[in-house]
Amino acid sequence: MADKVTVRAVAEESGLSIATVSRVINAQGQVSESARRRVTEAIERLGGATPQTRPRMPKPELPILVRCPYQLSDYFGGLVTSAAETLALAGRQVLLDVGDSRLAAPVVKELPGSRTAAGAILILPPESVEDLELLQRRRFPVVIVDPRKPVPRGMVSIAAAHTAGARAITRHLMERGHRRIGVISGPADWLTGADRIAGHLAALSEAGLLGRPELVRHGEPAIFTGVAAGGELLDLPERPTAIVCFNDKVAVGVFQAAAERGLRVPRDLAVTGFDDSEMSLATAPMLTTVRQPLREMGRIAVTMLTRLLERQALDALHIELATELVVRGSTVADGDVPGGGEGAAR
Amino acid sequence: MADKVTVRAVAEESGLSIATVSRVINAQGQVSESARRRVTEAIERLGGATPQTRPRMPKPELPILVRCPYQLSDYFGGLVTSAAETLALAGRQVLLDVGDSRLAAPVVKELPGSRTAAGAILILPPESVEDLELLQRRRFPVVIVDPRKPVPRGMVSIAAAHTAGARAITRHLMERGHRRIGVISGPADWLTGADRIAGHLAALSEAGLLGRPELVRHGEPAIFTGVAAGGELLDLPERPTAIVCFNDKVAVGVFQAAAERGLRVPRDLAVTGFDDSEMSLATAPMLTTVRQPLREMGRIAVTMLTRLLERQALDALHIELATELVVRGSTVADGDVPGGGEGAAR
Repeated sequence: MADKVTVRAVAEESGLSIATVSRVINAQGQVSESARRRVTEAIERLGGATPQTRPRMPKPELPILVRCPYQLSDYFGGLVTSAAETLALAGRQVLLDVGDSRLAAPVVKELPGSRTAAGAILILPPESVEDLELLQRRRFPVVIVDPRKPVPRGMVSIAAAHTAGARAITRHLMERGHRRIGVISGPADWLTGADRIAGHLAALSEAGLLGRPELVRHGEPAIFTGVAAGGELLDLPERPTAIVCFNDKVAVGVFQAAAERGLRVPRDLAVTGFDDSEMSLATAPMLTTVRQPLREMGRIAVTMLTRLLERQALDALHIELATELVVRGSTVADGDVPGGGEGAAR
Repeated sequence: MADKVTVRAVAEESGLSIATVSRVINAQGQVSESARRRVTEAIERLGGATPQTRPRMPKPELPILVRCPYQLSDYFGGLVTSAAETLALAGRQVLLDVGDSRLAAPVVKELPGSRTAAGAILILPPESVEDLELLQRRRFPVVIVDPRKPVPRGMVSIAAAHTAGARAITRHLMERGHRRIGVISGPADWLTGADRIAGHLAALSEAGLLGRPELVRHGEPAIFTGVAAGGELLDLPERPTAIVCFNDKVAVGVFQAAAERGLRVPRDLAVTGFDDSEMSLATAPMLTTVRQPLREMGRIAVTMLTRLLERQALDALHIELATELVVRGSTVADGDVPGGGEGAAR
């Protein structure tokens, strides 16, 4: 029967060695054209089916590490989900390293040579530039999402267009008459915060204004930061008419600080967030914010990592994905009445 | 020098075979007391340092699969983070399978025998009871968190005390005078929803009341469900004075449905959530809800799985973790004025 034709039988029929027949069948190594023809003819004489040789086992692929050493919230969870789903589509297993308790774990240092992962996606990595450079020197494929610090030259990074997003927010507030705008940014040494402040200052500058350091606060991206820093800003002798928060949760805290002081949003105070998390739909009025392309960021991180794994050349090493201003009631009152105490501007 | 003492040198010095010396040094196999003493003495004569033999490589441990085929939100992200952190503490690697696109992936069927994971934590598994039973027949270690359906006999599952949590919510509302209470539950075939409705009915029954099917709605745990189902309930000829939602996001939607109808929370309508996600702090007034012990659930899942991996006997197969009623402004007005239109009750 056709399915009983063996390599040995083809070798006997053709008068060639088993090794040569195997090379022809598996299309491996050097074989002459005449050997190829003799094998083909022998197979046909024997019944026509190419003998099965043991399939070469595909080398088992190491998984991809996704490291995000923070509590998985709507925000980080969105990034991780998108990256993991895209990796699964590509047939890759995902090793996960998450949670605040993993912040100082020496995972990244140990990656090269550990044979635990073929590559890594590092989300908001807390590692030093030196640790990241080590990965690069060891040619370990890595993509950074949302870098906290400037990434080493030649390393691939993906971020939302923080500067543009923050500029759009401040422009929107200035169009509505605000001139005295408070800012609550992330921790002072985070790159994302610095980029967003740059966007804010650019928008002010376009209108001929300079930023006022006394109107800027920093803190963890959490509700309590908004309550505390928002309270400080609202207790200034000349309080801001708008507060820009670089995180939706912080904005929720500012709502609370405003309510505690009997101030109404947006009539007495305009408030903006950043991320467009679902929480921005829970406030009353809902939150004007900047939509971050979380799903796109996760997908593109995987695409870039795949190209690194295949040792393809990459043109764009730093990818910025567009953000989108989402205007809601926290800056614009019902009926499109200009929001936020323009009378008190400057 | 001490660090140059070799097994061969100890063998020559002691007059014993290399094999015997190795067995003594590595504390393996049978050796006589006299051989042990001769080896010890030879090592001391040679300089005192025990020769290094090649350490036995520990058998590499397979990772643990954490499967949660949903978008990682604050809720699911909290569970996954807690499980992953606890597994990392136990020195275990975490394979991740997440995202709505993975809902129908045949991961669970392929687990036994695949050598991809040593065990699995399945969060709200969509798999059929038959698929779960397969794992059990193959003795694959698995722990189920938040089962959607009754789990097979003998399988370990962990859940929050849904019935008790829901009973506490309805009791709280009845103490505040509510008698006509709407309910928005999860999808009709989810076990968690059935357990919570049981708790709600128990609380009603304690007060001599029966549940009214026309006041119960079902839907995805999302804001839009609250807007739609909440709107339906509020448009009933005799509208409820309180709406119990089995999810915080759904409660946010009910806030919106109430606002659209000019109803104020809690004066005209009491609203409750479930989960105590951060979103419950973003509404005005803040949301009365039931705190789920997410971190504890993740930790205990790992503890139970570790015991299964070690083939230890487990006494408690179904673990229920206590929930906690968190009372906020959505059911109790400022100054402790009884909330929610008792005049219209019954």
